[in-house]
Amino acid sequence: MMHNHEASSPSVLLVGARGYAGQELARLLLAHPSARLEFCLKSDDAAFRLDDYVSAPGADAVETLAPGQLDAHAGRFQVAFLATPAEVSVELAPRLLAQGCKVIDLSGAFRLAPEQASSVYGVRSALLSEAEYGLVPFAKGKPARLIANPGCYATSILLALIPLLRAGLIEPETLVIDAKSGATGAGRKAAERLLFSEVDGECTPYKVAGHPHHPEIVRFAGQFAETVIDPTFTPHLLPIRRGLLSNLYARTRPGVTGARIAEAYAEAYSHYPLVRFGAFAEGGLSWRRIEKSPDCEIRYSLERGKLSVFSLIDNLMKGAASQALENFNRLLGIPPETGLPSSLGEIKISKEGIS
Amino acid sequence: MMHNHEASSPSVLLVGARGYAGQELARLLLAHPSARLEFCLKSDDAAFRLDDYVSAPGADAVETLAPGQLDAHAGRFQVAFLATPAEVSVELAPRLLAQGCKVIDLSGAFRLAPEQASSVYGVRSALLSEAEYGLVPFAKGKPARLIANPGCYATSILLALIPLLRAGLIEPETLVIDAKSGATGAGRKAAERLLFSEVDGECTPYKVAGHPHHPEIVRFAGQFAETVIDPTFTPHLLPIRRGLLSNLYARTRPGVTGARIAEAYAEAYSHYPLVRFGAFAEGGLSWRRIEKSPDCEIRYSLERGKLSVFSLIDNLMKGAASQALENFNRLLGIPPETGLPSSLGEIKISKEGIS
Amino acid sequence: MMHNHEASSPSVLLVGARGYAGQELARLLLAHPSARLEFCLKSDDAAFRLDDYVSAPGADAVETLAPGQLDAHAGRFQVAFLATPAEVSVELAPRLLAQGCKVIDLSGAFRLAPEQASSVYGVRSALLSEAEYGLVPFAKGKPARLIANPGCYATSILLALIPLLRAGLIEPETLVIDAKSGATGAGRKAAERLLFSEVDGECTPYKVAGHPHHPEIVRFAGQFAETVIDPTFTPHLLPIRRGLLSNLYARTRPGVTGARIAEAYAEAYSHYPLVRFGAFAEGGLSWRRIEKSPDCEIRYSLERGKLSVFSLIDNLMKGAASQALENFNRLLGIPPETGLPSSLGEIKISKEGIS
Amino acid sequence: MMHNHEASSPSVLLVGARGYAGQELARLLLAHPSARLEFCLKSDDAAFRLDDYVSAPGADAVETLAPGQLDAHAGRFQVAFLATPAEVSVELAPRLLAQGCKVIDLSGAFRLAPEQASSVYGVRSALLSEAEYGLVPFAKGKPARLIANPGCYATSILLALIPLLRAGLIEPETLVIDAKSGATGAGRKAAERLLFSEVDGECTPYKVAGHPHHPEIVRFAGQFAETVIDPTFTPHLLPIRRGLLSNLYARTRPGVTGARIAEAYAEAYSHYPLVRFGAFAEGGLSWRRIEKSPDCEIRYSLERGKLSVFSLIDNLMKGAASQALENFNRLLGIPPETGLPSSLGEIKISKEGIS
Repeated sequence: MMHNHEASSPSVLLVGARGYAGQELARLLLAHPSARLEFCLKSDDAAFRLDDYVSAPGADAVETLAPGQLDAHAGRFQVAFLATPAEVSVELAPRLLAQGCKVIDLSGAFRLAPEQASSVYGVRSALLSEAEYGLVPFAKGKPARLIANPGCYATSILLALIPLLRAGLIEPETLVIDAKSGATGAGRKAAERLLFSEVDGECTPYKVAGHPHHPEIVRFAGQFAETVIDPTFTPHLLPIRRGLLSNLYARTRPGVTGARIAEAYAEAYSHYPLVRFGAFAEGGLSWRRIEKSPDCEIRYSLERGKLSVFSLIDNLMKGAASQALENFNRLLGIPPETGLPSSLGEIKISKEGIS
Repeated sequence: MMHNHEASSPSVLLVGARGYAGQELARLLLAHPSARLEFCLKSDDAAFRLDDYVSAPGADAVETLAPGQLDAHAGRFQVAFLATPAEVSVELAPRLLAQGCKVIDLSGAFRLAPEQASSVYGVRSALLSEAEYGLVPFAKGKPARLIANPGCYATSILLALIPLLRAGLIEPETLVIDAKSGATGAGRKAAERLLFSEVDGECTPYKVAGHPHHPEIVRFAGQFAETVIDPTFTPHLLPIRRGLLSNLYARTRPGVTGARIAEAYAEAYSHYPLVRFGAFAEGGLSWRRIEKSPDCEIRYSLERGKLSVFSLIDNLMKGAASQALENFNRLLGIPPETGLPSSLGEIKISKEGIS
Repeated sequence: MMHNHEASSPSVLLVGARGYAGQELARLLLAHPSARLEFCLKSDDAAFRLDDYVSAPGADAVETLAPGQLDAHAGRFQVAFLATPAEVSVELAPRLLAQGCKVIDLSGAFRLAPEQASSVYGVRSALLSEAEYGLVPFAKGKPARLIANPGCYATSILLALIPLLRAGLIEPETLVIDAKSGATGAGRKAAERLLFSEVDGECTPYKVAGHPHHPEIVRFAGQFAETVIDPTFTPHLLPIRRGLLSNLYARTRPGVTGARIAEAYAEAYSHYPLVRFGAFAEGGLSWRRIEKSPDCEIRYSLERGKLSVFSLIDNLMKGAASQALENFNRLLGIPPETGLPSSLGEIKISKEGIS
Repeated sequence: MMHNHEASSPSVLLVGARGYAGQELARLLLAHPSARLEFCLKSDDAAFRLDDYVSAPGADAVETLAPGQLDAHAGRFQVAFLATPAEVSVELAPRLLAQGCKVIDLSGAFRLAPEQASSVYGVRSALLSEAEYGLVPFAKGKPARLIANPGCYATSILLALIPLLRAGLIEPETLVIDAKSGATGAGRKAAERLLFSEVDGECTPYKVAGHPHHPEIVRFAGQFAETVIDPTFTPHLLPIRRGLLSNLYARTRPGVTGARIAEAYAEAYSHYPLVRFGAFAEGGLSWRRIEKSPDCEIRYSLERGKLSVFSLIDNLMKGAASQALENFNRLLGIPPETGLPSSLGEIKISKEGIS
């Protein structure tokens, strides 16, 4: 048989499979040794078949639920992935949790404090207090039943930043972030500004001083590194399909060396294989090489007390789908990289059991 | 003063200035020595200023009409350009004509015979019988008050094809057309299939055996060259912003030489400066060189009785806006190239009077 | 262990690993269950490490031979892949064969008849008479010790064409081919015409009536379908990295139906899983979906006796590297798809033995 | 006649017309009312015709000098433009100056202090001491006979930076610069890293802490604003043909407001029309709108003492060719914008005399 899922694998529901992150998630779930992707929820009553959107073995066997069928079926799923807009997530999550289904949400709905969630995403859920922010290498203890999967910019930035802040290597108030994202980061929305004829040939800043991931970065730098930051954060949309590069600039504290930087990352990621780091070398960072990889590539350059850190991810993988799978693996108590393609193109399959 | 329009220049209305062809048309009209672009019609009651969409001297002085104001003002315009969908054009054209305003329509609404217009564009106007197809080098006599500006594919194809058919150089039943268009050819519609993330990296046939320009090509090959054709016509959308290349393949009649081909084009365009032609040479066709040019570049290659003709235009200029200006010039009785940038980057200004 | 190669797998040499096809080939060979990629030959004495060019498990363990070391080591390899220019291939192939090493050559050096090889590629090898053209589904009998891997355009065209010719469905003299290739098809040559600033925004015909794959197509249509053809063949270079689409246009013979077309393909590929075919449907062909796939996707449309066939491949896979692996599998006597990613993203691993 | 050059216009020599900046320069010179582009110098004895590279009226009339003919003809030119590599410029400039020809050099050869020129560009000319840095709005007094045209990154950065430093609005030591350039900025060199297949899909930092424009920025911030700076400067190459965006980030001095920023720019550019500035607004910066424009667009955003300044130019115009024309106009004593297309698409022609 094509599927090698263990019989005891949890049954999974995916919502939002038409979107770019949702497609990627479906592809990964179908290949995962410890997941049984059984159903997709569609957004309306129109016909929908997963294999029209996802070319992967098993896609044709996934069934589709219409919106009205959700409550009747929710009890059969152990885990649901929501690759949906925030307003859909706040509506679906409580219905799923009520039936004992754990939820991994890819929207921003459950990432911020209540007042911020309202102003940034226009939603406010009673579940905010119990949601856990799923930045896997820094998550601790028993996972919550509702996991907020980090945003793409926030992921690339926090993975580069937290080790530096924890080790006290930079002056937090000097932090400047200039980030560049592939166009899939804006989602599969039929918006005029995302047309080929608009995006091609352009690279300009957007949501300057107002991007929704800014408060997310500030909040979790505080939570994971106990440091107050208030960086300049300028995102750009590029004429590239996928990939995301965040450049972090900061002054180091006196006496900090390149070796100290390396040490901080080595310490932070000693037990986590999905971050690679090192000193920057010309030609050493490639968006294409990170494509479809679950890794984050971090490179740094230190010149006379001025630190530049370049953090590169695939926005649809580490910035969305593969990180959601890492959180799924946490729920199961298996290594984060289980079922993910390695940065070297190989599927690593965990032999361990399922919680 | 920035504007050198002669005082007696006709007053012009533009509808559809937000679209890609409309923007180009506004830019050209503002630079035209014998046009006074005075008003744009907007599609709803939202705020609209032409200079938000068009960076050109004089754009800030163009006034905006709301839909409800049209009939009250239509009498003041001598010429209206409709860069609108077919269903809008069929609604506006009679109202404008009723007030004595001439109309140049860039949609497909008035290009086909009645039964075809219905099935292809879903519209059918009583004005079809009086509309004139504005393929300028082949238009003759006094221009009609309603001009149907040719479609972008049809323009590139008919300009290459008609001289060959008229001179009887090819076997019409062997004609095959493979065409490639830049993404602006699909317009500024917020459609999912036109997103950067969809178009980038793709080049696939679309509307195979069903493109609306197919009956247009057949009809006017018949009308201008008295030849029945029924070609295979396969358009493709490319990850390029602008430009359009049509490749025509056909068998030549016995004894036809390259010199005969050249002669046919020379004869057809002896009095028309906006087609350039010659034998194909490697590297001799460039989409970038034709950008913003009103020209059509035709190159041919003849091998053992098999003719390939490559016809290249800027889809937004020759395929839409600059050709509409040529039709405007016809209405005024001045040379077609008046007020248009030359293929060599220069604005040629006619010294002749206005009809 | 990362490598699951059976101990008895043949030892493999790769020449030309820096090029785009070579990189792809290295990646596939490292993942192949029945190959041991042990050495790369470099082109000069500069430092070279495969893992600088290829991110794949095992790349760091592949050793490098300098040119002067080849003869001393050639005896240890069972199979060599030459992803090299024709002039290098004609020099290396006899030296390898002399030591009992089989050769799969990706250049054009061994594809044509002697007089054509001279005029098209400027080389002429005494080995031409014994080289076998490795178009796998049509290759028969015991494989030769020297295999000429088909060209990218020729592959996409012949796979679509041979079944039609064999079944006598089209009029061969009406055949017209318009093909479009991604830029990697031109190789990793530092040539001005291949610069981003030259390729971006352009799509123009090149090598019109003179592409090296033209005689290859004619020769093997003759050999595999016993039909004389002399098509118009016009290739284009696109601003897309990888992928290749060939459109074939022809008149069908009287009475031919779509069902007959389908039947011809079904018959030709009943025992060969790496061609997929069907009637053309809007949106049904995607360059991105075929990326890194070893498949050829064929879609056809028949209108009033005029047939259009669209044949899509990944130029670096089916058009080069994965097809070379298919030929390797033939040498081993195992199914052609062994060790190749399926079109559905899965590695299919043959359980059969090795010859 | 097509050319309206006044009879007394200086005779001009162009060297390097094949390159991207050189082509642009030829196009502008041919349209300039006070220049007579009479000769191009070619780099070797191969055939060369300007109109093979430049489509502009008059290109066919420009004659070509072979390298060996330069000294015999140099006396007839009043001004020479060198769009050449630094090592060619240092060789040609003294020969031209010796014959009384003024020189505008687009390379880096004459921009730096002697020791820097050696280490950065590998050249050291005795002329360095007399070369003038041609950043037009800040150049003063009688122009030198040898003008070093500023680099593309340096232009975009210094135009945004000098007014802020002069007005004392920012803390210079907090300056961080993150810049993005179109691929033509790297020139028309047949280099592997500039191939379409390499550049497409990538956006990575290069020459981190080592770009040749870094010392140029530091030197002229010092010279024009009497401020010592040592910024982090990170350039990126984008999959876009032309355009260049530099983002400057800095802390403002206490009490600085947006109004103060605007005032500083208004003061600096009160007599210079080719910089436009204003507060950043979403969607307000467009690479496409600045294409072929001689302007620099500056937008700023100030949040809680953190200033972001976005400076956008066409790298081939303001960053090379049109700025060289501004320097030519300075030599003639006519307004800087003479003969340049305006940002609004219009050619502004000075009526003033020629020095």
